[in-house]
Amino acid sequence: MKFGKVIGRVVSTQKVESLEGLRFLLVQPMNEKLEPSGNAIVAVDTLQVSIGEIIYFETSKEASRVIEHTMNPCDAAIMGIVDDIEITERK
Amino acid sequence: MKFGKVIGRVVSTQKVESLEGLRFLLVQPMNEKLEPSGNAIVAVDTLQVSIGEIIYFETSKEASRVIEHTMNPCDAAIMGIVDDIEITERK
Amino acid sequence: MKFGKVIGRVVSTQKVESLEGLRFLLVQPMNEKLEPSGNAIVAVDTLQVSIGEIIYFETSKEASRVIEHTMNPCDAAIMGIVDDIEITERK
Amino acid sequence: MKFGKVIGRVVSTQKVESLEGLRFLLVQPMNEKLEPSGNAIVAVDTLQVSIGEIIYFETSKEASRVIEHTMNPCDAAIMGIVDDIEITERK
Amino acid sequence: MKFGKVIGRVVSTQKVESLEGLRFLLVQPMNEKLEPSGNAIVAVDTLQVSIGEIIYFETSKEASRVIEHTMNPCDAAIMGIVDDIEITERK
Repeated sequence: MKFGKVIGRVVSTQKVESLEGLRFLLVQPMNEKLEPSGNAIVAVDTLQVSIGEIIYFETSKEASRVIEHTMNPCDAAIMGIVDDIEITERK
Repeated sequence: MKFGKVIGRVVSTQKVESLEGLRFLLVQPMNEKLEPSGNAIVAVDTLQVSIGEIIYFETSKEASRVIEHTMNPCDAAIMGIVDDIEITERK
Repeated sequence: MKFGKVIGRVVSTQKVESLEGLRFLLVQPMNEKLEPSGNAIVAVDTLQVSIGEIIYFETSKEASRVIEHTMNPCDAAIMGIVDDIEITERK
Repeated sequence: MKFGKVIGRVVSTQKVESLEGLRFLLVQPMNEKLEPSGNAIVAVDTLQVSIGEIIYFETSKEASRVIEHTMNPCDAAIMGIVDDIEITERK
Repeated sequence: MKFGKVIGRVVSTQKVESLEGLRFLLVQPMNEKLEPSGNAIVAVDTLQVSIGEIIYFETSKEASRVIEHTMNPCDAAIMGIVDDIEITERK
């Protein structure tokens, strides 16, 4: 899982049936120092995360398991909200 | 999921059986500012998307779920058409 | 799926059982302008593609579905031969 | 699998149900010379690894198999603690 | 699948149960000219490959199918030993 910041929302009316009713947020991936890293992605949100929050997300197959209808196609999902990152050892 | 723009079409007569009858579009991946990012890919389209439209697509296993015949091999599919991207927080 | 050109063949006598009898080609990945992009990979071929042909291939789990014995481990497969790439919209 | 060093911990109260009760560590990926390589990731730990230890981890689907409740979504998990890396051949 | 050279061994006593009894080799990924490309990875070996041999390996889900106990988590496995790479067409 990687860190990210929710920076916006994606509006889409016409989509594949299995994505109907889901909320799509725009997530900026970040490194462990919470600096932006790479392009923003579109992730499914089932936690009602607010814009601006620091979250961790998953990509790949696992992401689809967040969604109740398991056959939903989905390759990115928000997994949790970060309360704190404790870095106690240097690389 | 990532953003992309449909920039063309791929014609292929000889292919593996499970891909017969599917429509293949050429998709240029884009970042959240809709600037091109990386090489174009070949994605399956089940939404009858027009050339020039901004879409979001998936790669990896999930993509194959868009196709009714679930055993179809497919690692990239168009998931929806983007109406709007609202960026309300800066990175 | 990505574009590639078949540039050679890989000979391997000693391999895991599930790969016995399969044909392995050396594929140079290409972008949509058919310029080389990245390192060549080893892909399974079930279409009897000739050396020099432009094809599209898949990587990741989906690739294994091309092979009849579905339990075959395989993370790259040739999916079809490209007849034409029509680019009608610029990035 | 890749090498990494456990450099910290991630605290998260609000998360998807399937991640409840799991321990999340911050892992700095490393190359075979144990030099840092890329951004730190968040990995599930089922081995009670200590901060500072050198481990190997997996990403992608396989990671979720470490967790008993197989439907847990998880795309990164610590697989073992490295006792020794013996490099006997140069690249 | 990609080419690699076996450059060493990884010793690990404490690991997740599903990896018990497996042999882990250190593999340096290589391009088709057999030049090193990227960081070494840890791959499962079921072919009793010798140190120094040129092999092809897989990453991602497919790798786990090499192992008899199919629920083993494993994201990299050696699939075969390379006898010859015939490059007959230039990129």
